Amino acid sequence: MTQLPETQWAQVIERPGSGVVYKRIPVPKPGPDEVLVNIKYSGVCHTDLHALKGDWPLTAKSPLVGGHEGAGVVVARGSLVTDVEIGEHAGVKWLNGSCLACEFCRQSDEPLCANALLSGYTVDGTFQQYCVAKAAHISRIPKDVPLDAIAPILCAGITVYKGLKESGLRPGQTVAIVGAGGGLGSLAQQYAKAMGLRIIAIDAGEEKEKMCRELGAEVYVDFSKSKDLVHDVQAATKDGFGPHAVLLLAASEGPFQQAASYVRPRGSLVAIGLPGNAYLKAPVFSTVVRMINIKGSYVGNRQDGDEAIEFFTRGLINAPFKTVPLSELGDVFEAMEQGKIAGRYVLKMPE
Amino acid sequence: MTQLPETQWAQVIERPGSGVVYKRIPVPKPGPDEVLVNIKYSGVCHTDLHALKGDWPLTAKSPLVGGHEGAGVVVARGSLVTDVEIGEHAGVKWLNGSCLACEFCRQSDEPLCANALLSGYTVDGTFQQYCVAKAAHISRIPKDVPLDAIAPILCAGITVYKGLKESGLRPGQTVAIVGAGGGLGSLAQQYAKAMGLRIIAIDAGEEKEKMCRELGAEVYVDFSKSKDLVHDVQAATKDGFGPHAVLLLAASEGPFQQAASYVRPRGSLVAIGLPGNAYLKAPVFSTVVRMINIKGSYVGNRQDGDEAIEFFTRGLINAPFKTVPLSELGDVFEAMEQGKIAGRYVLKMPE
Amino acid sequence: MTQLPETQWAQVIERPGSGVVYKRIPVPKPGPDEVLVNIKYSGVCHTDLHALKGDWPLTAKSPLVGGHEGAGVVVARGSLVTDVEIGEHAGVKWLNGSCLACEFCRQSDEPLCANALLSGYTVDGTFQQYCVAKAAHISRIPKDVPLDAIAPILCAGITVYKGLKESGLRPGQTVAIVGAGGGLGSLAQQYAKAMGLRIIAIDAGEEKEKMCRELGAEVYVDFSKSKDLVHDVQAATKDGFGPHAVLLLAASEGPFQQAASYVRPRGSLVAIGLPGNAYLKAPVFSTVVRMINIKGSYVGNRQDGDEAIEFFTRGLINAPFKTVPLSELGDVFEAMEQGKIAGRYVLKMPE
Amino acid sequence: MTQLPETQWAQVIERPGSGVVYKRIPVPKPGPDEVLVNIKYSGVCHTDLHALKGDWPLTAKSPLVGGHEGAGVVVARGSLVTDVEIGEHAGVKWLNGSCLACEFCRQSDEPLCANALLSGYTVDGTFQQYCVAKAAHISRIPKDVPLDAIAPILCAGITVYKGLKESGLRPGQTVAIVGAGGGLGSLAQQYAKAMGLRIIAIDAGEEKEKMCRELGAEVYVDFSKSKDLVHDVQAATKDGFGPHAVLLLAASEGPFQQAASYVRPRGSLVAIGLPGNAYLKAPVFSTVVRMINIKGSYVGNRQDGDEAIEFFTRGLINAPFKTVPLSELGDVFEAMEQGKIAGRYVLKMPE
Repeated sequence: MTQLPETQWAQVIERPGSGVVYKRIPVPKPGPDEVLVNIKYSGVCHTDLHALKGDWPLTAKSPLVGGHEGAGVVVARGSLVTDVEIGEHAGVKWLNGSCLACEFCRQSDEPLCANALLSGYTVDGTFQQYCVAKAAHISRIPKDVPLDAIAPILCAGITVYKGLKESGLRPGQTVAIVGAGGGLGSLAQQYAKAMGLRIIAIDAGEEKEKMCRELGAEVYVDFSKSKDLVHDVQAATKDGFGPHAVLLLAASEGPFQQAASYVRPRGSLVAIGLPGNAYLKAPVFSTVVRMINIKGSYVGNRQDGDEAIEFFTRGLINAPFKTVPLSELGDVFEAMEQGKIAGRYVLKMPE
Repeated sequence: MTQLPETQWAQVIERPGSGVVYKRIPVPKPGPDEVLVNIKYSGVCHTDLHALKGDWPLTAKSPLVGGHEGAGVVVARGSLVTDVEIGEHAGVKWLNGSCLACEFCRQSDEPLCANALLSGYTVDGTFQQYCVAKAAHISRIPKDVPLDAIAPILCAGITVYKGLKESGLRPGQTVAIVGAGGGLGSLAQQYAKAMGLRIIAIDAGEEKEKMCRELGAEVYVDFSKSKDLVHDVQAATKDGFGPHAVLLLAASEGPFQQAASYVRPRGSLVAIGLPGNAYLKAPVFSTVVRMINIKGSYVGNRQDGDEAIEFFTRGLINAPFKTVPLSELGDVFEAMEQGKIAGRYVLKMPE
Repeated sequence: MTQLPETQWAQVIERPGSGVVYKRIPVPKPGPDEVLVNIKYSGVCHTDLHALKGDWPLTAKSPLVGGHEGAGVVVARGSLVTDVEIGEHAGVKWLNGSCLACEFCRQSDEPLCANALLSGYTVDGTFQQYCVAKAAHISRIPKDVPLDAIAPILCAGITVYKGLKESGLRPGQTVAIVGAGGGLGSLAQQYAKAMGLRIIAIDAGEEKEKMCRELGAEVYVDFSKSKDLVHDVQAATKDGFGPHAVLLLAASEGPFQQAASYVRPRGSLVAIGLPGNAYLKAPVFSTVVRMINIKGSYVGNRQDGDEAIEFFTRGLINAPFKTVPLSELGDVFEAMEQGKIAGRYVLKMPE
Repeated sequence: MTQLPETQWAQVIERPGSGVVYKRIPVPKPGPDEVLVNIKYSGVCHTDLHALKGDWPLTAKSPLVGGHEGAGVVVARGSLVTDVEIGEHAGVKWLNGSCLACEFCRQSDEPLCANALLSGYTVDGTFQQYCVAKAAHISRIPKDVPLDAIAPILCAGITVYKGLKESGLRPGQTVAIVGAGGGLGSLAQQYAKAMGLRIIAIDAGEEKEKMCRELGAEVYVDFSKSKDLVHDVQAATKDGFGPHAVLLLAASEGPFQQAASYVRPRGSLVAIGLPGNAYLKAPVFSTVVRMINIKGSYVGNRQDGDEAIEFFTRGLINAPFKTVPLSELGDVFEAMEQGKIAGRYVLKMPE
């Protein structure tokens, strides 16, 4: 085992709302059931911006190192950890750890654990060179997978894959993806295709249409041009009954309330995106007589994670990203806040 | 085969909004795939009142004989009907017939068939002595089951049983029933108990509390007295996470929007009741991070019907009812409109 | 509507074991709930040979017109049939009809109906120019689909697709297909791939290996060369636990008893092939502690049929076949009996 | 925290096949993720006898303290254990621990973990006063539950409950229980009833009939008297199609091979009992065309355990047992080997 350094570079939120400071901090030590991961790359997610700004009612650790899409190499492990080897490649995700024993953990719903540890929120995350994670929660990454490319899969990829699983769709059925042209949407389309689903992409503009068609969408519905979105989405299915499920990735509330009108009877709406202060809303009458199912899908559990990574490893998923050094995180957040970001940013840790 | 009469007594809605007229009309003749049922008793449902008043956007037949909870004896059958015997006891339900070949029928979702025939709405129903029904859609009733007592099961009973199936609950889990003290609610409690579920009854008043406790509710939450309903419902479960599912039978909109707050993470809300112009509504954020499932459950399919009837036949369900002659339907509707009805009314056909 | 002829060409089995006679017989007339299909092409299946020879304990109609993979055009319909148009393209399958009302039909398991009508076995089948079928049971075929190419899908294709559905596999999981290089096997591989599954093909010889690899198998295990088949199949999965399910298409008994040894814990064996007098057999101990699931999968229901046809229609399935005139059926049976048949034969009806 | 003793009483198998020795041994110390449970009572299971005699191919620890149905009080916990309190009542089960991170653990199938620790087999079990267990694997027992009565639930009860869950039965459906009059069988009947199932009990003799009827069996089939068991079991269901599932608890091979003949089409056989060198066996043909499902069900996972305990806690399960001191374990084993045991034995630990 290589000698580990005493200190490392990190981006630190000193107190809620203070912005990030690039500085050296101590390298943490893993507990008996933890590993220390030498992060090589970390994706940047909108959730990180929410953590930075203290947007959410949930109290964050302070001071805090953010980040929850970290890919790196295991460099140390606690005394109880026997099934992770030093040198293995590993991913650190939003769910840094959970109790593994409560009703939710027992039933593979770790993300619902009341005592879950959240990377970059309730515990320090992946915007540092060395990050601690519960050994049972890291994702194994095959050594031939590039650590920069897989970083965005660790949150964005798994989340949309989970949503597709939650939809209950069978291969051959049709999913409408609202926000198909965005970062989550482009991943969702690729996962949907790999899962044998047929895709109706819903978004705005010709540039997004081009991208969606290249990713495999059979139909593109431009909501900025459509005069009757409900009709157009339903007409995109052979029998006119509409898609079997709708994946809601949009950043505004409208689509969450409209989708119940065009989904097929017995179909599912799966809410994934989290527009601020938004509500799901649907008429009782038509929801009942059409037997519609409206459900929320949060981040994936550990098994979802492994499966999403395997699809990526097999070369079926391609998530474009731009790499910048960890030191430039502040600029990334600024661009993100101004809505100037297209695609995913991945931070490269200093050597 | 007995000689059938040419004419019969019926309650007829001459035109939308006209009220019912008790008069003699011709006895209909079954088509090749139909049976003729000599109705002995028919329940009266709120839906019948909606049909009478033309409340719904869906166009009804006119003139119309209402009713869809009819129990009687098969007295004639069409040439294609080989598996129903003359003399068998049968129930005629809301779903009088369906195409049996569309995507929904093929997957046991007959109630979603776009060409479904609705008793007492798009075809003549059970407020007459002789009613036609598609042979494949009647419910078989064992001969030792009283035809008056089972009438309300044919719609109300099956509907709540279906909702409990749709909830996805396993025996031993807990269901909160909103509106537990009403007609649907008392049936729902009995089915829930027969299915091995634990019950939190939600309603108002001590009279209803007494009834709910007798029917097997472990906890009664009086919403008219509770200062914090969400807390009280959750506290009624051992671990405080709340019930695994909520059955929404209420006649007002409020409970449909509140239940998402107290259901257990990963839990289901099942909307069954149909308050006028009501909306389901839930915050996107908590629905996603708690992975809540909100679904509508309509009337049961044929298999649900058979199962619900079997629970009744085994003596596990007791639905109190009051019997009046068919000729008094007008009075029943009047009382119903004034909210003066407690329990189910069953009409007795003239001999 | 065109005038229909009084007589037609057919291949008739005059009595059990008598062989087929090519002769003219009357054109049948559809009942009220039936259609008459002008068959254009019919596949020939091993089951037809069994019917010819009277191999099975189940009594067949006599005299009998065999065949159950017929594709053609609807030319007449009974009085109750309103949702099938004259001129529509339709497929006639093994399940010619069922009661649509029993417990099995009600739950979408029509193939288990005790009163099912079987094409080419208990009712006349598709080795004739004009075939009667229950309207609710025909498969709709889009007009741009070649009727010769789709014929083998109507039994072989649907059956393997059904087996894959019954396996409970999720996209991304691995299926081992025993008999992958045969007719059923090549269809199974194509359906598996379209459903997002990963394939381990098991068969013998290099020719079949080549074919399997072209169809998308990731691994080919040659049972004629393998010294330790259980090891080799398990080693074909990344973690060595073996495939999540095994599809048993083999024509001999051995593989049915061996597969329990290499399937993954919690995995499923799906028996589809019907080797004569064969038994499924597995040790109680390892079946219990590994929680193995052994199940039989029969022909698909109507919905399975539509789904399998849709995959074909989308161009994802390619089933090679050879076309001969109806008059040559006797030769096809002879070749089949001698095991000289490679691929599927499709009969062309006389104009 | 009370001072713990240095040594304790235990029943020790010094080497495979050596019999048990009642002696004092050191009190073990829990690791960081473990608890120490002061066992008050432990059930004795047939598996313990197999471990004693070295019957199984799986290598056991040696020397070994057997036992895996232990109920007691937590008296110490490791540094990582924060959600178990000193003084809590806890059960130690067959699954003493598992990795909680492999594919099986991640999907709530801990019993299939390749690195599972087995109480009284690969690690010391509950035939001692102080037993170590992984904190995440103990079962919580409410304080008002008698520790002697619940001991047999911790293996026998959970196992049959798991089998009923695996059967896929819905409330109202019928389960045939083979071996209904034995220890597992009487528990299975009580769980089945609590889950809303209908029971056909299969066993031999009038004494067992009496017991089965008292426990709620609707029909008792005496296999020692029946001239046609298949017919008699099927005739016990209203429509003659047979039970929806069969629970195989028998100690001999025959019933495992016969049940496929009387189970309902689409039904399930669930193998739980482990007769030596026995095979499951069923004809391919009828398994396929009747779509039968044959599956093995092993011990429950942690969630199954909690649920089974909750049914017991609610007073719905009553498992008769006989209490003897730990020192008499040798006599219990002897009686067990001679087949002289009726009902469950529970060992009382010395004070």
